[in-house]
Amino acid sequence: MSLSTKPLSGMRQRLPGEFRIEKFVTETLCLSSVRAGFEEYDGPVIEPLGLFAAKSGSELVGRQSYCFKDRGGREVILRPEMTPSLARMVAAQGELQLPVRWFSTPLCYRYERPQRGRVREFLQFNLDILGSENLAAELEVILVLQGIMKSFKAPSSIYRIGWSSRRFMSDALARCGVTKELTGGVFSAIDKRDKMKADAWADFLLGACGGNSVVARQVISLVSVEFLSDPWLMDLMSGSSAFQEVVEFNELLQGVGIPSAVFSPGVVRGLDYYTGIVFELMDTGGENNRSLCGGGRYDNLVGLFGNKKISGVGFGLGVLTLTLFLETYKLIPDSVREAAPADVYIAVASSDATAAAGLLAASIRDEGIRVMMDVSGKKLGKQFSEASRYGIPFVVTVGPDEVETGEYKMKNLSDGKIFTGSLAEITGRLK
Amino acid sequence: MSLSTKPLSGMRQRLPGEFRIEKFVTETLCLSSVRAGFEEYDGPVIEPLGLFAAKSGSELVGRQSYCFKDRGGREVILRPEMTPSLARMVAAQGELQLPVRWFSTPLCYRYERPQRGRVREFLQFNLDILGSENLAAELEVILVLQGIMKSFKAPSSIYRIGWSSRRFMSDALARCGVTKELTGGVFSAIDKRDKMKADAWADFLLGACGGNSVVARQVISLVSVEFLSDPWLMDLMSGSSAFQEVVEFNELLQGVGIPSAVFSPGVVRGLDYYTGIVFELMDTGGENNRSLCGGGRYDNLVGLFGNKKISGVGFGLGVLTLTLFLETYKLIPDSVREAAPADVYIAVASSDATAAAGLLAASIRDEGIRVMMDVSGKKLGKQFSEASRYGIPFVVTVGPDEVETGEYKMKNLSDGKIFTGSLAEITGRLK
Repeated sequence: MSLSTKPLSGMRQRLPGEFRIEKFVTETLCLSSVRAGFEEYDGPVIEPLGLFAAKSGSELVGRQSYCFKDRGGREVILRPEMTPSLARMVAAQGELQLPVRWFSTPLCYRYERPQRGRVREFLQFNLDILGSENLAAELEVILVLQGIMKSFKAPSSIYRIGWSSRRFMSDALARCGVTKELTGGVFSAIDKRDKMKADAWADFLLGACGGNSVVARQVISLVSVEFLSDPWLMDLMSGSSAFQEVVEFNELLQGVGIPSAVFSPGVVRGLDYYTGIVFELMDTGGENNRSLCGGGRYDNLVGLFGNKKISGVGFGLGVLTLTLFLETYKLIPDSVREAAPADVYIAVASSDATAAAGLLAASIRDEGIRVMMDVSGKKLGKQFSEASRYGIPFVVTVGPDEVETGEYKMKNLSDGKIFTGSLAEITGRLK
Repeated sequence: MSLSTKPLSGMRQRLPGEFRIEKFVTETLCLSSVRAGFEEYDGPVIEPLGLFAAKSGSELVGRQSYCFKDRGGREVILRPEMTPSLARMVAAQGELQLPVRWFSTPLCYRYERPQRGRVREFLQFNLDILGSENLAAELEVILVLQGIMKSFKAPSSIYRIGWSSRRFMSDALARCGVTKELTGGVFSAIDKRDKMKADAWADFLLGACGGNSVVARQVISLVSVEFLSDPWLMDLMSGSSAFQEVVEFNELLQGVGIPSAVFSPGVVRGLDYYTGIVFELMDTGGENNRSLCGGGRYDNLVGLFGNKKISGVGFGLGVLTLTLFLETYKLIPDSVREAAPADVYIAVASSDATAAAGLLAASIRDEGIRVMMDVSGKKLGKQFSEASRYGIPFVVTVGPDEVETGEYKMKNLSDGKIFTGSLAEITGRLK
């Protein structure tokens, strides 16, 4: 019986044409980060289970994880996200110059039901600043996010950066009458608002509020607020330092001018470790109705690894979700999709010219030119067809005559013209 | 109790300084492959166990694998190598233009005892041609390998490409008196020759030869042969087509002129699926006494996935082993090690200038210049020190005065000189 030609469901497999598109996306992410002075790092895929059990939330670890015992009996997990590993790396470095600005594009794993834009093995771009408690850090990561969208030529009309604050929301929920014991559950309920139908969600929220309909109605008012200057909100939050911080951050965003950034109290993000400003990036078109990116401030993560208290702020962005978004708005350039694998093809007229063809190929490659050499041993006509199907613009033929004279013929496949010259002349022409 | 600051033993963790070196290595590998018309792909890390059980050999799967049952009850394995996934991808494509020239740098997993150059989670560069049975394909992959070493500026004196042929060795062993049943074991014994002391190995080989010392002595003669023109060898192999192929391949290598390529009958490679020419790249200095790279022809791998018979040839190269080799010979450029993370640092004179600094940073980044913006909120002197410790050459200061006048001061940290100008003038100067 033969083996299946399919990978396991939800796994990442990329043929060259698909890989080119993915690499265009990840390299653009990388370039935007490098331009902002961020440095690339990576951590292990296999991590101790305890690293995520502490702070990532029970859904991620308890129900969606790839975890197992390794041959040494250790309880391990394939990382479902990057931030805990990042926090550990920063905590371990005694001599690190803080703040650090780091980014990475790790492979991550979650056992979920595969569907459009959601797979089990995925690349998640991460960008973080650790070691600054200043709101300038939040501003900077959102500036980088805006720079990323600009690099992809995405107009600000097609996406929205919704933002709020966990600290502000904790205070606001308390002022709405949510008790301390119920706060976690109400956060979860708010996080699920966009994933449920309106009436089902209202019931769900009522349950999270311990059945108290007065409190639930207050919470609904809160998450429906659209402006920081809303009189009901200003009255509710009178004297709150957390609200003051939100107002201050809003002024920073206005000052820089980020048209896509919108204050949205309903944005709370699912991960347990966020403590301050949180934000997410959504497609406003609605075709890709999941968030492309989520992030925020996490104050207590590095402290898990010892006594050092280092605050962080950052975001994670799904490469596949972003790619689907770019495809929807036709923002993947045709040049990426249709790239030819070489600039010139070396056709081998007969097998006794193979070594000479190899020598020629190596010389031209040394000049930085992409050379595909025939290895099929087929007739010349078929070799020309192969070059043509690949979209390679030139073919140089090598046979015993060329070896003897040192003169080569190079055909331009688009106009059929032939250029004859020495190796140096051919190379010069290709350059 | 706090969590450990260490990753699990043998796992890959890269701080930015380490990542830069690794990326220099992988990008050089990528560039050399692209220059030869090869295209990049990737496959899943999590694969069905059966994919490797079929052909990779029992040591890899039975003793060194990371395998477990996923939440759906599937027997899965973290890929210990790439070739079986590659074979499946090629087998699954009906419309593929053959031969394909593909490369990848996958993360792979083997549960071995960690030591210098050997870890449990590692990047292995892979380059393959599938769909050509011609010796030109073997020549081409070795040419690319030579091109890689050239790109790293490694002189051919510091490495050796030892090569042989499985088909030739099978025939030669039979002519030495090794029976069919013992051939597999003798291959394994030959593969271990460099890893054991001479007398221990001689005993081990004698056992593999079923205790027949005459046969064992013949095998020792065989693996000690240094030239194809060796009279004993020519006599032994008289009339052998497999020997003829080896002679032909040697002529190709001589014709192209690859000084580091050496016929070495003792090179057989550990993986079970090789069928024809095999080769490995070794450090001749002896400091890194493991092979940096191994490869060869595999005829029957794609056939596991159906009726299509597609022959392949390629190699795998350990990125970490190669990096250690490059470090030994001081081939990692200082510019890679000491790269500054930005071209200019934006110092923020007071917090009311934060938004203006953000705007300035975004404008300069749009010109492709790398800009690190202060997010610390510290005093100006400390901000200048931060820029200096990072090795960033210029600092532009933004405060309320600059915001009002639109004139900025840029300090060159190496000579202390100050340039004053508008945003456009500062950007022009930086370019």
